[in-house]
Amino acid sequence: MDQRLQLITLGVRDVAASKRFYVDGLGWSPLLELDDVLFFQVGPGLVLSLFGADALTADAGLPDPAASAAALPGRITLGRNVPTEAEVDAAVAKAGAAGGTILKAPMKAFWGGYHGFVADPDGFAWEIAYNPGLVFADDGTVRFTEVEAD
Amino acid sequence: MDQRLQLITLGVRDVAASKRFYVDGLGWSPLLELDDVLFFQVGPGLVLSLFGADALTADAGLPDPAASAAALPGRITLGRNVPTEAEVDAAVAKAGAAGGTILKAPMKAFWGGYHGFVADPDGFAWEIAYNPGLVFADDGTVRFTEVEAD
Repeated sequence: MDQRLQLITLGVRDVAASKRFYVDGLGWSPLLELDDVLFFQVGPGLVLSLFGADALTADAGLPDPAASAAALPGRITLGRNVPTEAEVDAAVAKAGAAGGTILKAPMKAFWGGYHGFVADPDGFAWEIAYNPGLVFADDGTVRFTEVEAD
Repeated sequence: MDQRLQLITLGVRDVAASKRFYVDGLGWSPLLELDDVLFFQVGPGLVLSLFGADALTADAGLPDPAASAAALPGRITLGRNVPTEAEVDAAVAKAGAAGGTILKAPMKAFWGGYHGFVADPDGFAWEIAYNPGLVFADDGTVRFTEVEAD
C-alpha cells in the first residue's frame, strides 16, 4: 500500500438523491454516470465515487454498521490503483504484514479488473485495484475506457 | 462547494497506533507530524490527515457514532480549501441551499484559519476551509507554512 490515493468511494443510501445534491444542487459534472454509481473528478488524478451503500458494503467486505454500535469508519473506502494484478497481490500482502486486516483477498472484480480490500487499524478500508478501464494520466487527468468484463 | 477535494481526514482511535501502521509498517513519510495528528501527501495536491476521532468529532460537529445505530458515514471528513474566508462563507451557503446540512457554520478555526462543515445527504462531512498555512501549489505539491493562531 504505497503513499498514494486516487479514488474515494462513499457508500450512499440513494444514488439518485446523491445526484440531486451533487449534480443538480451543486452543479458538478460527472465523469461517468451509471444507474447505481456516479464518478466525479475532484482533483488532479483524483476521483470521488458515490456508490450504493449496500453494494459497497458487500463488494468491499465492510462490516455491517447496524451490527456494531461503534461502527467508527462507516461505509467509505479509500482507493489506490496499481498497474498490474501482481502489484495488487503485493500491496495487499504488505498491508496485511503491516498489521492491516484483509477484508477481501485479491480477486477478479465484477467490473472487469482485479482488487483486494485491507482495513487499517480503525477499520478504514483501502481498495487496492488493477483497473484497466480507469486511466490516470501523468498530467493528472482521469478517464474511463471500455473494458471487457468477465 | 466546488468539484474539488484536497484533504481527507480520518478520525482515528489512536494516532500512535495509526503511525505504527502507516509510518513504521508501510513506510510512509509524513508531511507534518504533531502529537495528535499526522499529515501525508497522497497525490498531486492531495493530503490525507489522521486525527483523533474524538477531536475530529468535536471539531467537525459530527454525530456521535455511539448515539446512532445507523452511523453510516462514521468519523471522516472530505476537505476543500478555498483562497479566502468569503469563499468559505459562500461555499457553505451554497451547499446548504443545495440540501446539505450545515454541521458547523463558518467560524475561526483553532489552527488559525477559518472553516465550516456541511454534511451531504448521507451525512458525509465536507470541510470548507481557508487555511493560509497549507499551500497547494499549481504543480500539485503541498506544503505547510507557519501561521499565527488566534
